[in-house]
Amino acid sequence: MNINQNYSNLQDSYLFRTIAQRVSARKAENPGAGIIRLGIGDVTRPLAPAVVDAMGKAVREMGDAATFRGYDDGGVGYDFLRDAIAGYYKSKGVDIGADEIIVSDGAKSDVGNILDIFRPGATVAVPDPVYPVYVDANVMAGNKIVYIDGNEENGFLPSPDLPDGVDIVYICSPNNPTGAAYSREQLRRWTDQALSSGAVILFDAAYESFITDPALPRSIFEIEGARRCAVEICSFSKLAGFTGVRCGYTVVPRELRAGEGKSLLELWKRRQTTKFNGVSYITQRGAEAALSPEGLAQCRENIAYYGENARIIGAALEKLGIRYFGGVNAPYIWLRCPDGVGSWEYFDYLLNEKDIVSTPGAGFGKNGEGFLRLTAFGTRENTEEAAARLG
Amino acid sequence: MNINQNYSNLQDSYLFRTIAQRVSARKAENPGAGIIRLGIGDVTRPLAPAVVDAMGKAVREMGDAATFRGYDDGGVGYDFLRDAIAGYYKSKGVDIGADEIIVSDGAKSDVGNILDIFRPGATVAVPDPVYPVYVDANVMAGNKIVYIDGNEENGFLPSPDLPDGVDIVYICSPNNPTGAAYSREQLRRWTDQALSSGAVILFDAAYESFITDPALPRSIFEIEGARRCAVEICSFSKLAGFTGVRCGYTVVPRELRAGEGKSLLELWKRRQTTKFNGVSYITQRGAEAALSPEGLAQCRENIAYYGENARIIGAALEKLGIRYFGGVNAPYIWLRCPDGVGSWEYFDYLLNEKDIVSTPGAGFGKNGEGFLRLTAFGTRENTEEAAARLG
Repeated sequence: MNINQNYSNLQDSYLFRTIAQRVSARKAENPGAGIIRLGIGDVTRPLAPAVVDAMGKAVREMGDAATFRGYDDGGVGYDFLRDAIAGYYKSKGVDIGADEIIVSDGAKSDVGNILDIFRPGATVAVPDPVYPVYVDANVMAGNKIVYIDGNEENGFLPSPDLPDGVDIVYICSPNNPTGAAYSREQLRRWTDQALSSGAVILFDAAYESFITDPALPRSIFEIEGARRCAVEICSFSKLAGFTGVRCGYTVVPRELRAGEGKSLLELWKRRQTTKFNGVSYITQRGAEAALSPEGLAQCRENIAYYGENARIIGAALEKLGIRYFGGVNAPYIWLRCPDGVGSWEYFDYLLNEKDIVSTPGAGFGKNGEGFLRLTAFGTRENTEEAAARLG
Repeated sequence: MNINQNYSNLQDSYLFRTIAQRVSARKAENPGAGIIRLGIGDVTRPLAPAVVDAMGKAVREMGDAATFRGYDDGGVGYDFLRDAIAGYYKSKGVDIGADEIIVSDGAKSDVGNILDIFRPGATVAVPDPVYPVYVDANVMAGNKIVYIDGNEENGFLPSPDLPDGVDIVYICSPNNPTGAAYSREQLRRWTDQALSSGAVILFDAAYESFITDPALPRSIFEIEGARRCAVEICSFSKLAGFTGVRCGYTVVPRELRAGEGKSLLELWKRRQTTKFNGVSYITQRGAEAALSPEGLAQCRENIAYYGENARIIGAALEKLGIRYFGGVNAPYIWLRCPDGVGSWEYFDYLLNEKDIVSTPGAGFGKNGEGFLRLTAFGTRENTEEAAARLG
């Protein structure tokens, strides 16, 4: 048998393994160290009570012959959830048809799997620094990656200056890892570019719920023309703390068509109904509850909690005169390592001198060198303690 | 943007749409008809009490900060579940390492997604008749499909007479749609063939829990040499009624290596940790409970219930002198349409004269013409009523 040779081109995922090794070494050296983890972008707040109630009820329904449910017919999500998501968009001022929403087990799956419907060997523009999944999924597909630079000059928000022949562009706003968020005007320049060049934008909106500034767009579909050039991938992971529950969705507008007139919505549905079989009914009831008025209010309390964590970390950095990006409208703080030290050097300093685990920016691409990512997803107690140690 | 042209080679999935249209027409014509659905392979029994309890507890844990869990670290399944699955294999007399088990959201996902790790354009042997997902997933991947014939002569159990150059072979035993199950000796001939030709067997064991005959293998890994040539894909859908809960797993033996010495287990882990993010913690606790002694006993009551349904349908067919396959060791009854009528003709007869929904065998491939699939997954009441109507 012959394997997919593209896998040989993958970089080994040393980043989090190396981090884990260094953390273990620190622990071995100093067993009493109260290590605080502000590295991984995973939530810590429990699920909202409305979600817990809804999932508990759904579990009981599944245990009763009268209310048991088998396959989610079609595998694209129950109407009750697709309607709730369409309602959520409506609350952002965006009209999306429930039939344009394909429910999945998470944004990470969709960000990679959606490449299936595009030409293998496509040219794909990926920001640098970037969420590593974009790169790895495209390497696996044998696609040609061109990097678009995020840096201090553009506030880690690359401009739409693409080389010719780009088929697909990934945009993540608010951004992981930098926390930077595009304005409406900046996104309009992106959709203009895509419409004129024929590229499709894969817009990763996983962190949209962290936007507090009403001037910032929370969906690419707030931008004129986006329905003809963009797909939006979103998640309940950060909105409702579903990292361990698994639910996301992808919005593919009806108008979005490839050169041959093929509907991308129909292609994506065909992909999902063939190689996926829907999301747990229990999970879908939980996601529906997260979007209810009560559920949303509870989820927003958690988001405000993380937002306050971000503020605390930011204030500590400001006191130290350390420059950073994000920290507002995003759960990430992307800081310039002081005194020109490298990402890994500063990572080691924070780990061994302050017992704080971070993520070296260099792990997210060449433009991440000299930067470090901290997350706001810790507990308040740990975040305050980390801020005190930094100071 | 350019789409994946392989999608243009997909057959439109008319089968279940056509069935739905004809059922609607019958209903419109005769609104009082008590239509009994023995078409789709979806379960109807509620989840086992042990599963409901475990999932209810897991939901409550997720609502408490002290016990909340985020990402399933690594995304390949919690140790508690991988250990439970390894224990389940042990109960079948098969030694599988927990580290060789990659938990997923279902067998359907894995059956398609695993193609990612093999050379695009591979030559893939697929039985006919067959579960349509094997065909569609390979068409999407641009693979070359060669069909291996199942028919009355070989009892719908194709022999390992493969043309040269086959990279991958799908085997499903007990089979969907025919209910036929391979013996150990027959599977040993398959593993011999794969080992000598260098093909890899993708063994779909989704229906293993329906095997009651101890002489029949419930895992390809009961067969000598299989660890060097086979991957096994399995599911909680039929064992524990998880069609609406979503959990499956794929076993990739450590010994399984491609020509270049690459470990398929490492490749599959890399694929899953990149383009998938693990299964809901709540679901994993439910799956663990399904494999506990109490849970297994409860799940086996449901399987026995469906098994009795299959016996009832089989007995009715025997009385009518209709030849069928399956019905034991499988939840499907694959019957020869009487008097040489075609699949769709007999489908229409059962629908319009008996108000029974079936699946025409022709929908599963050319060798399915003249056959019909009935499922044992209905309620007892409906199954008995259908048997009475047949007679």
